Amino acid sequence: MSDTQDIVETAHALADAARGVILPHFRATGGLAAENKATGAFDPVTVADRAAERAMRAVLAKRRPDDGILGEEYGRSEGTSGLTWVLDPIDGTRGFMSGTPTWGVLIAVGGAEGPTFGMIDQPYTGERFWGGLGTAEWTGPLGRRTLATRATPALDTAILFTTFPEIGTCREQAAFRSVAERVRLVRYGMDCYAYALLAAGQIDLVIEAGLHAYDIQAPIAVIEAAGGIVTDWAGGGVHAGGRALAAANAEIHRAALEILAPMIAEAP
Amino acid sequence: MSDTQDIVETAHALADAARGVILPHFRATGGLAAENKATGAFDPVTVADRAAERAMRAVLAKRRPDDGILGEEYGRSEGTSGLTWVLDPIDGTRGFMSGTPTWGVLIAVGGAEGPTFGMIDQPYTGERFWGGLGTAEWTGPLGRRTLATRATPALDTAILFTTFPEIGTCREQAAFRSVAERVRLVRYGMDCYAYALLAAGQIDLVIEAGLHAYDIQAPIAVIEAAGGIVTDWAGGGVHAGGRALAAANAEIHRAALEILAPMIAEAP
Repeated sequence: MSDTQDIVETAHALADAARGVILPHFRATGGLAAENKATGAFDPVTVADRAAERAMRAVLAKRRPDDGILGEEYGRSEGTSGLTWVLDPIDGTRGFMSGTPTWGVLIAVGGAEGPTFGMIDQPYTGERFWGGLGTAEWTGPLGRRTLATRATPALDTAILFTTFPEIGTCREQAAFRSVAERVRLVRYGMDCYAYALLAAGQIDLVIEAGLHAYDIQAPIAVIEAAGGIVTDWAGGGVHAGGRALAAANAEIHRAALEILAPMIAEAP
Repeated sequence: MSDTQDIVETAHALADAARGVILPHFRATGGLAAENKATGAFDPVTVADRAAERAMRAVLAKRRPDDGILGEEYGRSEGTSGLTWVLDPIDGTRGFMSGTPTWGVLIAVGGAEGPTFGMIDQPYTGERFWGGLGTAEWTGPLGRRTLATRATPALDTAILFTTFPEIGTCREQAAFRSVAERVRLVRYGMDCYAYALLAAGQIDLVIEAGLHAYDIQAPIAVIEAAGGIVTDWAGGGVHAGGRALAAANAEIHRAALEILAPMIAEAP
C-alpha cells in the first residue's frame, strides 16, 4: 500500500473509531456527563470528547506510530516522520450538548506548512467529507458524491455562515458585520458543519475568529481539495489558528478579504 | 380503524409523500430553482415546497376528503368535518437552500382551538417527531424513542434556541435578549428542528416572533404531547401564529414569561 493510501485509510479508521465511541453519548437519556475545567464557567468538555481522542490515539499508535499527534484534549505528542495528525474529537461541543447534528470529528494530517489531507465526520447523520492527496469526496444519506465548491461570483448572491453572531472581539465583530451586510443570506449555529457545506457547494463563505489549529486544519484541507480557499482575514495562512475566511472561489474570497483586511489591519 | 388511528396514519402518509417529493431537490447539483414572490426581495419559495404541498393535498383528497386544509403555499380549503390539516411543506426554506438539515415538513391537525396532533419530519436525516392523540414518539438514526421534555428547573441552566438573532421588531429583540442574557447557552439557526429538540429533551426554550399558524401548530402539538408548554409571549394561545414561547416545563416557562410579558405589554 502506498503511504498516500495508508494515510487516507487511517483517517477513515480514525473517524470510525471516534464515531463508535461518541454516538452512544449523543442525546443520551438522563443528560450528558460534562466537566467544568474552570469552576463556574460553561465548558462542555464531555466524556465522549476525551474517550474519542483516546480511541483515535490508539488507532494511530498501532497504524502510524512514527507520526506526531496534536489533539484538542491531550495536546501534542512528537513524532519522527515529519507528519502530524491534528485531531478535534468533537468540534462544536455546544452543538453536541444541544442535540444538534452540526458538531463533527475533525481529522487532519500534514507538516509544519499545513494539512495535506483532512476529514470532517458527522456520526449522527452518517455524513463524512474528506479531501486532499488527490481526493475530494463525501458520503451520506444521498450516497457518495464528489466534493466541489460553487462558482457564486459576487457577495450579493452569497450565503455566509458563522457559528455565533457574537464572533470574536468588537473589532472582529464589526468586520464580520461589514461582510454580512453585503451578502444575500447570513446563517448561524452550524459549527464545523458549515465548512462541510461550503466544500459540498451549498454555501459560499464561512468567517470565524478565535480558532485553534485543530478547529481549522481539517476544514482547510477539505475545502481546498474541493476548489475553495481558506486564509486568515489578511490573506495569510490560518493552519495555526486565528481568524478564518473560507470561500468557495477566488472571486468571493477576494471580495470578502477586501472588506475584512482593512478593518483588522490596526488590531493588536 | 378508529378515527384517531386514521389521523395518525394519514399524518405519516403525508410526511412520506412530502419526503419523496422534496428530497430529490435537497442539495441538488446545479443549484435550486427558486422564485421571487416579490421582485428584488429574497424569498426562497422553491419548486420542492409547492410540489410537496400538492402531494400532501392529494393524499388528503383521497384519505380524508371532508377535512379542511390550511397550507403555506396554497392557502385555505374549507372542509365539513370540523377538522383542519395545517401544512408547511418546507419550514425553514433558508436552511433548506443552505443545505442544512434543520428544515422540516410540518403537519398538524385540529379545530379552531388549536392542534390535537402534530408531526415534524426531517427527510434528510430520516428523523420524524410526532405527538398528540395519546402518542409522543420519534424515530431516526438512533431508533424509535419516546418524546419527553426535560426537567431543567431554572433559566441559568437552560439552553435557548431561536432561528435569527435579529428576531422580530426592536422591542421583541430587546425582550428576547433579556431572556438570552439569563440562560446558560443560546444557539441560532435551527428552524423548526429546535422545537423537535425541545420535545426530545435536548434543549429547554425556543423563542420566536412573526410566526404563522402553519409554522407553530405542529410544534405545539408535538411539544405539548412530550410534556412541554407553548404559548405566546403573554401566556395566551399561539396556534394562530405570532410570538411563540416554547418551554420544556412549567418552571422554565414561567421564568421566561415573567421576563417577556412586561417587555411587550405596551407593544402595538
